Amino acid sequence: MPQTRPVTSAEGDLLAALFHPRSIAIVGISGKEVSLTSRPLQYLLRSEFAGALYPVNPNYEELRGLKCYPSLASIGAPVDLVLSMVPAAGVVDVVRQAGEVAAKAVVVFASGFAEIGPDGAALQQELAEAARAANVRVLGPNCQGVINNETGLIGTFTGAADRPLPPPSGVAYVGQSGAIGGSVLDLSTEMGLGLTAWASTGNQADLSLVEVATALLDDDGVRVVLLYAEGITDGASFVALAAKAHSRGKRLVMLRSGRSSVGRKAAASHTGAMLGDDISLVLTAQAYGVILVDDVDELLAVGAALASTTPMVGRRVGIVTTSGGAGILAADHFELNGIGVPELAEVTQTALEIDVPDFGATSNPVDVTAQILNKPNGTAAFGEVCKTVARDESVDAVCVVLTMVTGERGARLADAVVEASRTAGKPVFVSWLAGREQTTEGRAVYREHGFPVFASVGDVARTIGHIAPTANDLGVRAVKSAREPEGNAGELRALTEACAAGDAESEDLLDALGIARPRSVLARNAAEAAQAAAEMGGQVVLKVHAPDLAHKSDVGGVVLGVAAEDSGVEYDRLMGIAAANGIDAAGVLVQEMIPTGVELIVGATSTGDGFPATVTVGIGGVTTEIYQDVISQIAPVTAEVARRMLEKLRGWPLLDGFRGAPVADIESAVDAIVAVGRLIEQFADRVIEFEINPLIVAPKGRGACAVDVLISATPA
Amino acid sequence: MPQTRPVTSAEGDLLAALFHPRSIAIVGISGKEVSLTSRPLQYLLRSEFAGALYPVNPNYEELRGLKCYPSLASIGAPVDLVLSMVPAAGVVDVVRQAGEVAAKAVVVFASGFAEIGPDGAALQQELAEAARAANVRVLGPNCQGVINNETGLIGTFTGAADRPLPPPSGVAYVGQSGAIGGSVLDLSTEMGLGLTAWASTGNQADLSLVEVATALLDDDGVRVVLLYAEGITDGASFVALAAKAHSRGKRLVMLRSGRSSVGRKAAASHTGAMLGDDISLVLTAQAYGVILVDDVDELLAVGAALASTTPMVGRRVGIVTTSGGAGILAADHFELNGIGVPELAEVTQTALEIDVPDFGATSNPVDVTAQILNKPNGTAAFGEVCKTVARDESVDAVCVVLTMVTGERGARLADAVVEASRTAGKPVFVSWLAGREQTTEGRAVYREHGFPVFASVGDVARTIGHIAPTANDLGVRAVKSAREPEGNAGELRALTEACAAGDAESEDLLDALGIARPRSVLARNAAEAAQAAAEMGGQVVLKVHAPDLAHKSDVGGVVLGVAAEDSGVEYDRLMGIAAANGIDAAGVLVQEMIPTGVELIVGATSTGDGFPATVTVGIGGVTTEIYQDVISQIAPVTAEVARRMLEKLRGWPLLDGFRGAPVADIESAVDAIVAVGRLIEQFADRVIEFEINPLIVAPKGRGACAVDVLISATPA
Repeated sequence: MPQTRPVTSAEGDLLAALFHPRSIAIVGISGKEVSLTSRPLQYLLRSEFAGALYPVNPNYEELRGLKCYPSLASIGAPVDLVLSMVPAAGVVDVVRQAGEVAAKAVVVFASGFAEIGPDGAALQQELAEAARAANVRVLGPNCQGVINNETGLIGTFTGAADRPLPPPSGVAYVGQSGAIGGSVLDLSTEMGLGLTAWASTGNQADLSLVEVATALLDDDGVRVVLLYAEGITDGASFVALAAKAHSRGKRLVMLRSGRSSVGRKAAASHTGAMLGDDISLVLTAQAYGVILVDDVDELLAVGAALASTTPMVGRRVGIVTTSGGAGILAADHFELNGIGVPELAEVTQTALEIDVPDFGATSNPVDVTAQILNKPNGTAAFGEVCKTVARDESVDAVCVVLTMVTGERGARLADAVVEASRTAGKPVFVSWLAGREQTTEGRAVYREHGFPVFASVGDVARTIGHIAPTANDLGVRAVKSAREPEGNAGELRALTEACAAGDAESEDLLDALGIARPRSVLARNAAEAAQAAAEMGGQVVLKVHAPDLAHKSDVGGVVLGVAAEDSGVEYDRLMGIAAANGIDAAGVLVQEMIPTGVELIVGATSTGDGFPATVTVGIGGVTTEIYQDVISQIAPVTAEVARRMLEKLRGWPLLDGFRGAPVADIESAVDAIVAVGRLIEQFADRVIEFEINPLIVAPKGRGACAVDVLISATPA
Repeated sequence: MPQTRPVTSAEGDLLAALFHPRSIAIVGISGKEVSLTSRPLQYLLRSEFAGALYPVNPNYEELRGLKCYPSLASIGAPVDLVLSMVPAAGVVDVVRQAGEVAAKAVVVFASGFAEIGPDGAALQQELAEAARAANVRVLGPNCQGVINNETGLIGTFTGAADRPLPPPSGVAYVGQSGAIGGSVLDLSTEMGLGLTAWASTGNQADLSLVEVATALLDDDGVRVVLLYAEGITDGASFVALAAKAHSRGKRLVMLRSGRSSVGRKAAASHTGAMLGDDISLVLTAQAYGVILVDDVDELLAVGAALASTTPMVGRRVGIVTTSGGAGILAADHFELNGIGVPELAEVTQTALEIDVPDFGATSNPVDVTAQILNKPNGTAAFGEVCKTVARDESVDAVCVVLTMVTGERGARLADAVVEASRTAGKPVFVSWLAGREQTTEGRAVYREHGFPVFASVGDVARTIGHIAPTANDLGVRAVKSAREPEGNAGELRALTEACAAGDAESEDLLDALGIARPRSVLARNAAEAAQAAAEMGGQVVLKVHAPDLAHKSDVGGVVLGVAAEDSGVEYDRLMGIAAANGIDAAGVLVQEMIPTGVELIVGATSTGDGFPATVTVGIGGVTTEIYQDVISQIAPVTAEVARRMLEKLRGWPLLDGFRGAPVADIESAVDAIVAVGRLIEQFADRVIEFEINPLIVAPKGRGACAVDVLISATPA
């Protein structure tokens, strides 16, 4: 379940050891300049790392003007962080020696561990055990290291660090893949986005990306953490990370790969990581405002936008453009990304008439046309237009869409836009549809002021769509407010487990949950069936009773509307059908007829991997299979959230008096959903599935009735 | 309807006049170098235009070494094309003078026409009339001109032409917006994609982008035409363009803006263009293989890919990457774009083991790891891997995904990839997740060989998704084969019009279409109702009969299962309901009860704007409104296409024996769809809507029955 984990001192220690070491030893450093293993020291010196640096290599007395030591033990001064550049076979030794000198953390760059097969996996296991024994945290193996741009800690050999980093932006990055990490570092540097911290967790023998990211949230210099994950197996840690970021007002942006069938398979073989339950992850992200993106460029664009702009308070933009066509295209993309392009107030449009030519447009998108820039003070006029649009109460941000405004004029325009953004009080975004070669001057201005320049209207609209606030109406508050302790929680859990094991009847569980069900009697012969039907009065439903028969109706094992006097004959017929289908039936259930109403499915799943359990509601009947009209939410859910889930179903009108039909008994449906949510909440620690199918929701005032229940669980 | 328009000599003349003039006069050229109006001559001289150039300005004797003429008439030699740089007020005169010297076409750059309001619109109208009178074709006004990169015709003042264009690639561009056109030119030049031809049609007083594109298809040097459209109002011309491209084996790629509600409104005010029916446009595009894209960068990426690669014959790729993580991400994006990432054959994987390290992967995505490049001959090995993957029969293309392979090594790798692509026999695509600054050498190699380099795995996957062949199973062949002349077409049209006007009964139209319907009698009093019901036998349906009552059931105007003896009483009750609802009912329809079955909606629409009429089929009942399970196709449709439409419905299982239900009478449903398609085909020239709702499809062998029909039409 989502729960805020208190900041442990372990997280603070990790932050200190990995990102704020006072001293660094580099073991296995090469003396040859072209060698990869010589790079970290070069980078650390170039960036003027603020602490002590100890190269360790018995073959040298000195390297780059620093004394070189034969071993960690020979340094004779405290070592916080060890960068291990030795090959796989020597790594365990380095970790042991690091423990002996009381180092806090070791970064292991070597590959040749779990990614190469069983032998490597054994070595990785040995590494993890050595780390525990030595009381040392290990980043890697098969990773590309760590960077803290605030302190000059460039502990990596990726060529992406060849260029000095732009000043720290408050945006950090943590990812599994070393190569993607290198690309992120290089691309962010080229964008002018100086990553504050950066880490590649590789095979994650010890430290996971979630742990590293959680520690980074304690860094005052970090406001945004970008994550690249190939698999999150520890759901509880991820929930804690998301909750911590949310409570600190910091943002997480996550790119996850391995979501397709092929990608999933490749990811499993790549890092050996099994992917956690994606639905739970997505719901957790939504609850805590974690932004999920689909590609590396999108990850960086969102990071840059979060770094550079004041937060948006709504989802509406005013577009200012030099091209009517580009403005229209931008409006299309904003609509696609759920961002409004509202009409501007009359007073705004009147004010715009001063600067916007006749053949432009003062309505949103505001088309100033390229000709505004041909006028004297044209760039200043453009800045005024941006300010005027920003003042309009109907917009939450200004999006400038430029076409071919090149050379010096592009730079002067950039000055005007930057200046306008200072007084706008709302974020200003820039999209520039022009090549780089003729726009270097202008791009330099934006870069200098930390303005990301988006290459397409699609990019800027997608980015704003990500960072603008969402309604969050099934969000974190609801999750939290549902978390009251329930008196009968243990009892429900035991009963559910008994049902799953076949030791109790699901009818009793429904009763315990307070969910109505039809009266039901198990008849073991024709006479019992006839008697039960007579006692219920009216017509009854007969169902073959066998635990392994999920879809009874498919084989004709269910008969509706049987008169009491026919029940004995029908009993025999149904048992015959069961026998013909090779089903070992215990008898036939005789049930009351159910009131007609709207069929729902109410399901709940716990995946046992630490991710929160989920409740799923859908329109039942044929719709479930064909139209997949379902919605899921983290368990437990409040009545308010349950109702919103129903309202979000496309089939909601069916419950709400569609075409003159009676309004359904929503409250009873909501009660059932809430009860199922509380039930599944008990099972975060194991795999279990619970499904009411159908829940018949009768017209208002006549209740909701669970007709059938399925419970399956892996053995505890 | 889609129909191949024969190439008229007019199209050839237009191509010759606009893109292959032997001589160009520039009227209103400025002598000042900084002036926009001086640019075209500068560009034409720089690009060594192959024909005669005549600057026209009475204030100069000579300009840039060329004789300058006081007027068009004074040139005294044939002038094919006139570039008019004069302000709006002088344009009509220039066109008249152009006619007098027998020029073929005039490009009008001036703004100040329809885009500024009624006065400008009147001037534009005058311009169009002057063009017709002078027998001159006009491009513009408010446009940015025309380019033919083969002949050095750079007839534009966009700053995007400041840089020399890369060599012609076979890709042309035609668009309305001048600013977007400038961006496309600049961005394509920067990508190394030399546009063969380029035109901006502006306000389209005379020439439309469809006409210009249609003419360009006659140019042997043009294989691909990129289109940017803010509105296509003449559907028939667009269909002819798409059909012509298809028949010539040339590709169209189209970006259309103004698809959102705001964008649509802005587009209408921007160019005064009303948007045609988008569904018809999309279906036409699908039928003829026109690629529809969503953004400028996507337009260029698809154009570059079509220009540079051999065609793909299927939708499967082999991925070769230096990063396991990036390979997984690429696989995710390919799946998302409908491109398979199949497992490679064992023989392929065995061959790959030579070059792929242990900790890489020989399965698809093939992860060669960054370390392959550290080996001697590592780049050659990479090339071998590409070739080996390309040889595998299960892939139709190779996608190389690179991360931080920088500097000289990146260039050597580029050489290897280019070399591999030469012998691969399948297209090779490159995505490079690295900034430009450290990869300039490698990018130069790709650019030199016309390889587009995609900046993200999402970009390359989206592009391949666009250019890879699609099943086209509702495609152009089907459209064509359905086009047999129908004997009773005129009769059907007349009857439909009579129905729409209320002068005929829709039952007669159903009979003419051969679509079954329940027997039905209009009773005008209770006695008639009782008698009709008695004659039909069994139970009947009674419906209030009033032409303006679309949803009879909403007010309780329909009663099912009425016994013959109750029909008189029900008649009176229904007429009472009608009266209470203010409905002027002509009586009550007495209908046979309809067999139970699956409810479909079969609709047809013609928009009267030259786009083909469409047939729409959907699952009926509540599903229609809630789940929108409908599919549309260009009319007419063959039986084969009609069946595929049904199969493409998500609700197809309902017709196909869902959960043990009987299979429906698909053939009868297909016959009805085909008949409706033939009907609507008669109405391409006017707005009409026809809908059978519901068509009850009974179990196989028992037919399909049209229960209700709605016909509406604008007056002819």
